[in-house]
Amino acid sequence: MVTRAHFFCLMALTFTLALAADHSPLQDFCVADPKSQVLVNGLACKDPTLVKANDFFFRGLHLEGNTSNPVGSKVAPVTVSQLPGLNTLGISLARIDFAPWGTNPPHTHPRATEILTVIEGTLEVGFVTSNPGNRHVTKVLQKGDVFVFPVGLVHYQRNVGYGNAVAIAALSSQNPGVITIANAVFGATPDIASDVLAKAFQVDKDVVADLKSKF
Amino acid sequence: MVTRAHFFCLMALTFTLALAADHSPLQDFCVADPKSQVLVNGLACKDPTLVKANDFFFRGLHLEGNTSNPVGSKVAPVTVSQLPGLNTLGISLARIDFAPWGTNPPHTHPRATEILTVIEGTLEVGFVTSNPGNRHVTKVLQKGDVFVFPVGLVHYQRNVGYGNAVAIAALSSQNPGVITIANAVFGATPDIASDVLAKAFQVDKDVVADLKSKF
Amino acid sequence: MVTRAHFFCLMALTFTLALAADHSPLQDFCVADPKSQVLVNGLACKDPTLVKANDFFFRGLHLEGNTSNPVGSKVAPVTVSQLPGLNTLGISLARIDFAPWGTNPPHTHPRATEILTVIEGTLEVGFVTSNPGNRHVTKVLQKGDVFVFPVGLVHYQRNVGYGNAVAIAALSSQNPGVITIANAVFGATPDIASDVLAKAFQVDKDVVADLKSKF
Amino acid sequence: MVTRAHFFCLMALTFTLALAADHSPLQDFCVADPKSQVLVNGLACKDPTLVKANDFFFRGLHLEGNTSNPVGSKVAPVTVSQLPGLNTLGISLARIDFAPWGTNPPHTHPRATEILTVIEGTLEVGFVTSNPGNRHVTKVLQKGDVFVFPVGLVHYQRNVGYGNAVAIAALSSQNPGVITIANAVFGATPDIASDVLAKAFQVDKDVVADLKSKF
Amino acid sequence: MVTRAHFFCLMALTFTLALAADHSPLQDFCVADPKSQVLVNGLACKDPTLVKANDFFFRGLHLEGNTSNPVGSKVAPVTVSQLPGLNTLGISLARIDFAPWGTNPPHTHPRATEILTVIEGTLEVGFVTSNPGNRHVTKVLQKGDVFVFPVGLVHYQRNVGYGNAVAIAALSSQNPGVITIANAVFGATPDIASDVLAKAFQVDKDVVADLKSKF
Amino acid sequence: MVTRAHFFCLMALTFTLALAADHSPLQDFCVADPKSQVLVNGLACKDPTLVKANDFFFRGLHLEGNTSNPVGSKVAPVTVSQLPGLNTLGISLARIDFAPWGTNPPHTHPRATEILTVIEGTLEVGFVTSNPGNRHVTKVLQKGDVFVFPVGLVHYQRNVGYGNAVAIAALSSQNPGVITIANAVFGATPDIASDVLAKAFQVDKDVVADLKSKF
Repeated sequence: MVTRAHFFCLMALTFTLALAADHSPLQDFCVADPKSQVLVNGLACKDPTLVKANDFFFRGLHLEGNTSNPVGSKVAPVTVSQLPGLNTLGISLARIDFAPWGTNPPHTHPRATEILTVIEGTLEVGFVTSNPGNRHVTKVLQKGDVFVFPVGLVHYQRNVGYGNAVAIAALSSQNPGVITIANAVFGATPDIASDVLAKAFQVDKDVVADLKSKF
Repeated sequence: MVTRAHFFCLMALTFTLALAADHSPLQDFCVADPKSQVLVNGLACKDPTLVKANDFFFRGLHLEGNTSNPVGSKVAPVTVSQLPGLNTLGISLARIDFAPWGTNPPHTHPRATEILTVIEGTLEVGFVTSNPGNRHVTKVLQKGDVFVFPVGLVHYQRNVGYGNAVAIAALSSQNPGVITIANAVFGATPDIASDVLAKAFQVDKDVVADLKSKF
Repeated sequence: MVTRAHFFCLMALTFTLALAADHSPLQDFCVADPKSQVLVNGLACKDPTLVKANDFFFRGLHLEGNTSNPVGSKVAPVTVSQLPGLNTLGISLARIDFAPWGTNPPHTHPRATEILTVIEGTLEVGFVTSNPGNRHVTKVLQKGDVFVFPVGLVHYQRNVGYGNAVAIAALSSQNPGVITIANAVFGATPDIASDVLAKAFQVDKDVVADLKSKF
Repeated sequence: MVTRAHFFCLMALTFTLALAADHSPLQDFCVADPKSQVLVNGLACKDPTLVKANDFFFRGLHLEGNTSNPVGSKVAPVTVSQLPGLNTLGISLARIDFAPWGTNPPHTHPRATEILTVIEGTLEVGFVTSNPGNRHVTKVLQKGDVFVFPVGLVHYQRNVGYGNAVAIAALSSQNPGVITIANAVFGATPDIASDVLAKAFQVDKDVVADLKSKF
Repeated sequence: MVTRAHFFCLMALTFTLALAADHSPLQDFCVADPKSQVLVNGLACKDPTLVKANDFFFRGLHLEGNTSNPVGSKVAPVTVSQLPGLNTLGISLARIDFAPWGTNPPHTHPRATEILTVIEGTLEVGFVTSNPGNRHVTKVLQKGDVFVFPVGLVHYQRNVGYGNAVAIAALSSQNPGVITIANAVFGATPDIASDVLAKAFQVDKDVVADLKSKF
Repeated sequence: MVTRAHFFCLMALTFTLALAADHSPLQDFCVADPKSQVLVNGLACKDPTLVKANDFFFRGLHLEGNTSNPVGSKVAPVTVSQLPGLNTLGISLARIDFAPWGTNPPHTHPRATEILTVIEGTLEVGFVTSNPGNRHVTKVLQKGDVFVFPVGLVHYQRNVGYGNAVAIAALSSQNPGVITIANAVFGATPDIASDVLAKAFQVDKDVVADLKSKF
């Protein structure tokens, strides 16, 4: 169980991460200032006289991610939270590792399109268009292949090869946001009324209860 | 079963609806031209000498929606598809009717924030923040109450009163888009591999198959 | 007469209302912080760990407005000033009440398009295009009708039915701004030189003096 | 009297002028194509292989304007209508000539801020803030002085020196639009109901009729 | 020598590449239509009923580039010209290969920030801030390191390791544009007057003539 | 050698100039506050109750610039640094003086398009398109002529008449930025490795050393 104090603590972490930056810089750069007490749409800037090359630098995208988890995949983001120089610049990176049959489960980025290239292995990828079509656009990717997931649409990747797989993804925001569908719907805090979910997914409340128990 | 020809026909309908307009008009107005052969980001404009008051007009938001369906709710949108004068202007409306306990199931608008006011009845509403918090922000609304659902976040409404309920919603795009979570995930065409969904929702493939059968 | 101190006090009120928010949120939300000492383009955000459902909530749009005034109409706005959760989200609402023959006089919104639906009664509405056409696009609306007023254009509404009339309007900014033509031109503080207005409206200074006396 | 056919002809002229371009170019340039049959938000582009230096060029801003008209001023615009290379680039120029006591009457630019510098003479200038302040911010300018009129606000200039005056203005849109208050309110086609204007300006219908007769 | 016909041919190629797309999609996607006769700010969209997964797909980023050229580096872009599904989505990728001591010479992207990660080898990278500081922000990167080059600023990369080097770069536009400084200044067609360049670089015309002869 | 204190001093100057404002105002105005301790994307706003007409005013664009310098030209900018009321409004001005054969050397504005009109004299002007065309678009301008330099492209002006020349330029940003090519490439602090520049410009390191010595 999560206590209220605990909850706020989680929220604080979320938003220290979440308060990002702007898509149209109005000066050469505006490096995010971790010490700023002022919260704005995006992050306030560090004093430019204190800015140094390391503010535009991040180390570690060559490191293999730990995929020992229920979905068998791991995302290492390089957003404004990890790389403060990205503030206001409208772009970020991520490395995604997949164990065999590992899955990056269906999710959306509310503030970014994603473009992904396979560094190693074979991935099945797909996105689904909005109502009423809900068209599933899908492809199997090999090393060196590139695929695009338009902003806001539900999408996923899955390792369908024999060994591990690795991808590098770029996103069109320094703070793209991630909404993992299963977690947002069945794992919200406090949870969404089972009646709402039972009607939405057209299943019994038992099934909803079971789904909620996983997240 | 949906044949390929049938599918394209559905797609065509989807996009006749979907190809909307722009958020920063570059002239007084740019009424969407239903006869244009040219597709652009948003819709091409009608010859302004042929524009008339009816292009900025829509009739029927007083009509009660038919809620005789599994979720017990009905949305009547007034986007650029219904009201061509909205093209490029960044706003739209909708009326939502709810039978008792009717639910507008969890969904996102990839291109719009929603602000809603209750005209009649009592609604429970909520939205869920992105990872890692997945905080559920919820409220019970009475007649005259207003609530906001930020762009891209999963949200829902449910009638928790004794009679019918009616709401008017406004959205910050002339073509906000709707992604109903259950339909996009379990009802995509072609469907998403059951293995992907089983891993994502941490359930057996039987449960996935059951969920898919509903959409 | 308005003293200088008095004037600044008015200005302060104006801007507590006016300093709004941004059209492209860079995080899930940025609830306006009423205690912030820092003024930015839009409003600074409240600490997200202190955000609660009430920040996205407003009560009272069902209440009838008092139309006992010279124009016989009353606007109840729900912008970021009334509903801090709207900050950065690019949308707002308003309720407009009209006594019989009540008029919402010609005005512009410098930062928003307006879409309006009639809840009760009959309204004549219109907008005027920019130079050189100055075309008047007008329509009589009944209950359930919807009309659009493009951003920045002069527009008005008038109750032309027998009883009261009520409309709900949505605007494509959390801080749309209102410029009532008569007040801005004939009621500015300090006033615009009568000679300027006499030449602009092609009338004697007597007429200008009379017009100024009303605002 | 203006016939319907005549009216549409005027409208056509208006919009050949009005359909401009975009604020964020997506290629080096997009010169407006006067022959394009397709109307979009902004103007379609000319084939770039046919683009030449003259597309970025305009001649004549040194020419004195003819101020023999009721307001004693003349504006020579250099927008995308006069200089097709401005398409998508978000800027334009204008020269304004003033006879002694000539006035550029109160107007708004719905899509642009204006910055003006005096080349010759002495100008009184001002703008008025939005409701509820309606603050009049005013200044007398000499040769070489610069003043700013924020987007969407009502503003004017008047020659208060002994001789002619000349100003160069720049606007933050290639198609800023102009709404001359007196013309939009009292000279719209068809005209706005006198009852609306009488209530708005708190005057008799006689005064409204007189004002309408001038535009 | 480049003939006029030859020149137009080059221009045509340039613009087939250059006419890209928009940063704020107004529908789920707008795949660039290579057959469109209409040029707009960005590219017109393909009929969505004809869109298929391959429109969002590109093959070949695993292929080593040929660095046998004077600068010893090779860029393989994946912009909207190579991947039409990127149209309107505001992002693109590139692979850069470097021979030992190979250099990606100083250049700017007028419409994009770049974020780069080293896949193999060791790179020295840097960017220079605008006037008056012209501060050089530089860093040596190893495999897995990430660096950011803010939009519009002059930047470069150089292989300072013993073997080949490879980087993946992402850019915040589907059509970022590249201006290689040496080519734009000393290799323009027709060339910039030697007197201009001699004064700009404070050198004799002989040096300018020599520099021009290389591009 | 530049000491650390010295360096910070240079940086501070850069950013006092550079930290500008936003292109889409969210209130009537947001005058830049020179006393703000908080740095944001653009500049924080002054308390609006303290705003006065002088905040929108600048004096001195009639003053002749001192062109006694190696390039024989002088730019007097009127950006948000000189005129705080420009903050958030997306426009600025500049006066450029040219001695006979004086040159405003090749440069880019990373955040603005420029439109220029000749007040006195005769100017040769030009801009160069991006790769691979590097097309030089050039024209000789007389008094009253207007020319456009699209955002981000390399451009220059040169006095080719017998006497002095004067131009007024407007830029589509309140903080357009200037990157003088020669200074950024050969005069950066610390300097760019000679090997990088030798390879980029295809010249010996001697020539690079000579070029560096000038900036």
